[in-house]
Amino acid sequence: MDMHELTRELHQKNDSKIVLLVADGLGGLPLTPGGRTELETAATPNLDALASRGVCGGMIPVKPGITPGSGPGHLALFGYDPLQYRIGRGALEATGVGFELGPDDVAVRCNFCTLDAEGNIADRRAGRIPTEESAELVKRLRDIRIDGVEIFVEPVKEHRFVVVFRAPGLGDRVDDTDPQQTGVPPLDPVAHDEASRRTADIARKFIEQARQILADQPKANCLTMRGFARHPNLPSYEDVYGLRAAAIAVYPMYRGLARLVGMQIVGQAQTLEEQIDVLEAEWQNFDFFFVHFKYTDSTGEDGDFQAKVKRIEQLDAVVPRIEALNPAVLIVTGDHSTPSFLRRHSWHPVPTLLVADACRTDACQQFGERDCVQGGLGQFEGKYLMLLALANAGRLEKFGA
Amino acid sequence: MDMHELTRELHQKNDSKIVLLVADGLGGLPLTPGGRTELETAATPNLDALASRGVCGGMIPVKPGITPGSGPGHLALFGYDPLQYRIGRGALEATGVGFELGPDDVAVRCNFCTLDAEGNIADRRAGRIPTEESAELVKRLRDIRIDGVEIFVEPVKEHRFVVVFRAPGLGDRVDDTDPQQTGVPPLDPVAHDEASRRTADIARKFIEQARQILADQPKANCLTMRGFARHPNLPSYEDVYGLRAAAIAVYPMYRGLARLVGMQIVGQAQTLEEQIDVLEAEWQNFDFFFVHFKYTDSTGEDGDFQAKVKRIEQLDAVVPRIEALNPAVLIVTGDHSTPSFLRRHSWHPVPTLLVADACRTDACQQFGERDCVQGGLGQFEGKYLMLLALANAGRLEKFGA
Repeated sequence: MDMHELTRELHQKNDSKIVLLVADGLGGLPLTPGGRTELETAATPNLDALASRGVCGGMIPVKPGITPGSGPGHLALFGYDPLQYRIGRGALEATGVGFELGPDDVAVRCNFCTLDAEGNIADRRAGRIPTEESAELVKRLRDIRIDGVEIFVEPVKEHRFVVVFRAPGLGDRVDDTDPQQTGVPPLDPVAHDEASRRTADIARKFIEQARQILADQPKANCLTMRGFARHPNLPSYEDVYGLRAAAIAVYPMYRGLARLVGMQIVGQAQTLEEQIDVLEAEWQNFDFFFVHFKYTDSTGEDGDFQAKVKRIEQLDAVVPRIEALNPAVLIVTGDHSTPSFLRRHSWHPVPTLLVADACRTDACQQFGERDCVQGGLGQFEGKYLMLLALANAGRLEKFGA
Repeated sequence: MDMHELTRELHQKNDSKIVLLVADGLGGLPLTPGGRTELETAATPNLDALASRGVCGGMIPVKPGITPGSGPGHLALFGYDPLQYRIGRGALEATGVGFELGPDDVAVRCNFCTLDAEGNIADRRAGRIPTEESAELVKRLRDIRIDGVEIFVEPVKEHRFVVVFRAPGLGDRVDDTDPQQTGVPPLDPVAHDEASRRTADIARKFIEQARQILADQPKANCLTMRGFARHPNLPSYEDVYGLRAAAIAVYPMYRGLARLVGMQIVGQAQTLEEQIDVLEAEWQNFDFFFVHFKYTDSTGEDGDFQAKVKRIEQLDAVVPRIEALNPAVLIVTGDHSTPSFLRRHSWHPVPTLLVADACRTDACQQFGERDCVQGGLGQFEGKYLMLLALANAGRLEKFGA
């Protein structure tokens, strides 16, 4: 049974406030076996006090051993089974640059590439041309016109950009044109159903016109397409939980993910402190607040243990301001682990704490990986976190008589 | 979603080695409440050192409270959901005597039985006739000929034997002929679909000819048939994990189970020490090694606590030889618990340890039931163990972007 069938049936409204504070990539590893992780190393008096008052656990984002990307990691935290709801690469990329996908859109992730005189790919990334150069070329591709379809071209970074085709009934079952190797020409976009045939035709015409526009380019004289994807059509927070939800995130990717589940994006914060300003300002306007902190992930990906420790301490410092708002439920977690030891996302359970009046406090006195393993929430799949949030907020009725 | 859809999509190859050391029936119970289990009693300095360096947990073979047979227990360890993949009794029995089932085979487990003068069953097990006598009768049954079908008859133990019918398109939806009581005649083999009707006809003819051959026997003058089953058609390790896998097992049952998932059976080892010789000899030829140790189970089934303790100590003694090979991932676990207190398989979680560079060590210092419950792997379903093995070996890509 879909958990949302249950929450649709059981949720009730009240005036409680829930805060979900997500430190991206929070979980870590020690640099030497038996040593301390980043979170265990950081001085976190405020998070430790929350752990003492609250209940802790190890959150498994997808399944044991599965390392999630940001999309599945956040879907799980939002209560959407990441194995059931999959966001296509193109849709995630469009979302990531802040493009608001509509129901008639098919988004495609594109790479500029270099073709040699024979029409074979010499460089799949067009020498990783600088972002500014790439953005200029993207502007020129906006001149492309195809009958019956609206086209959007958005720069991403270096050789990467996004194309969105908007027309009623377009399918997204179209194969990638990137052959994943050099010395061969780009592939033809092959469709796998009737609705996608039109998408493939449009893609073919787009590529044709693009090659004319790019013909004079020394490096970026062609493009490949990957991850054709429609809007994932996720049910909204209002629908499944009866929550008016707000997202306070700095990076477009996370604002986009929140928008996909019907959260309203509030504020223009650039720093964590400004994010808390927005939280305070919007406190009366929503039931649920998703606050996203990016830098615990990026320092982990940089492999910078000490920088990640510092970022965790920065997070700890704003906790009293959130507590002062007196949320009914405060959750601190991450969307996945990003140990600086590995310099990438990992599969390890994410330290998670939940504070609420009736949370049934456990023995955890510190917020850290090894303490959380002993916590009262045990190890649990991320998709259940929202059920715990709603329950602790008094927002779920009894199931059955 | 099937976990193998995920592993097919995410697995990547590298030169890491994974060792899965299975001590059959490893988990135990204390003889008196609050006492020590077999594993907690055994002197296991090497396993304790692994537990200290690694991460521990309690592996639930199927679901809490479910006691698995060897088939489901091993399927779970191999990453095949034992509730989804069921190996029919006949196929398991054939596998257990080392018979290599093919795609056109239907295997049936048979019992010699005694009929009285009225044709009613007087003894369902033919007085448990000795294995040697039974084997002689099995040889005589090999004279049975039925048009269009190849027939194999293999002895098992005492009154038990296996019959395999080989012909294209045979179904296995045929009811047992054993009425499970005495004083009534054997049942007719009833088919439940068209493909199985032919199998039932063949079975009927087989039984008819067998009764003529056995007519002069004082005890074993008839037979009953149970568990008609085709090859379970499990996807292979190469297919679902991209692993070249080897099995080093002494007993035919476990060699057979490994063969069903596409492992290659290597060596002719008769002792644990010889099994490790084979492991060393084959180290360069495979990515994954399943090493099966039987005697922790058989001593448990004998109800011999001290003998099980000794067998665990024997296992502990070979650990340094495995470590010396420097596997990327070393897992020690069992397929189920076999407490000598109960003298049979049980449902209790199985102590499990995993050692790898990025395993996130927990506080466990000893390898034992109560320590493992506190471990960093928590309690987890056996079918997820292979995901953890692959993740720790760097053999799983990120899920989603």
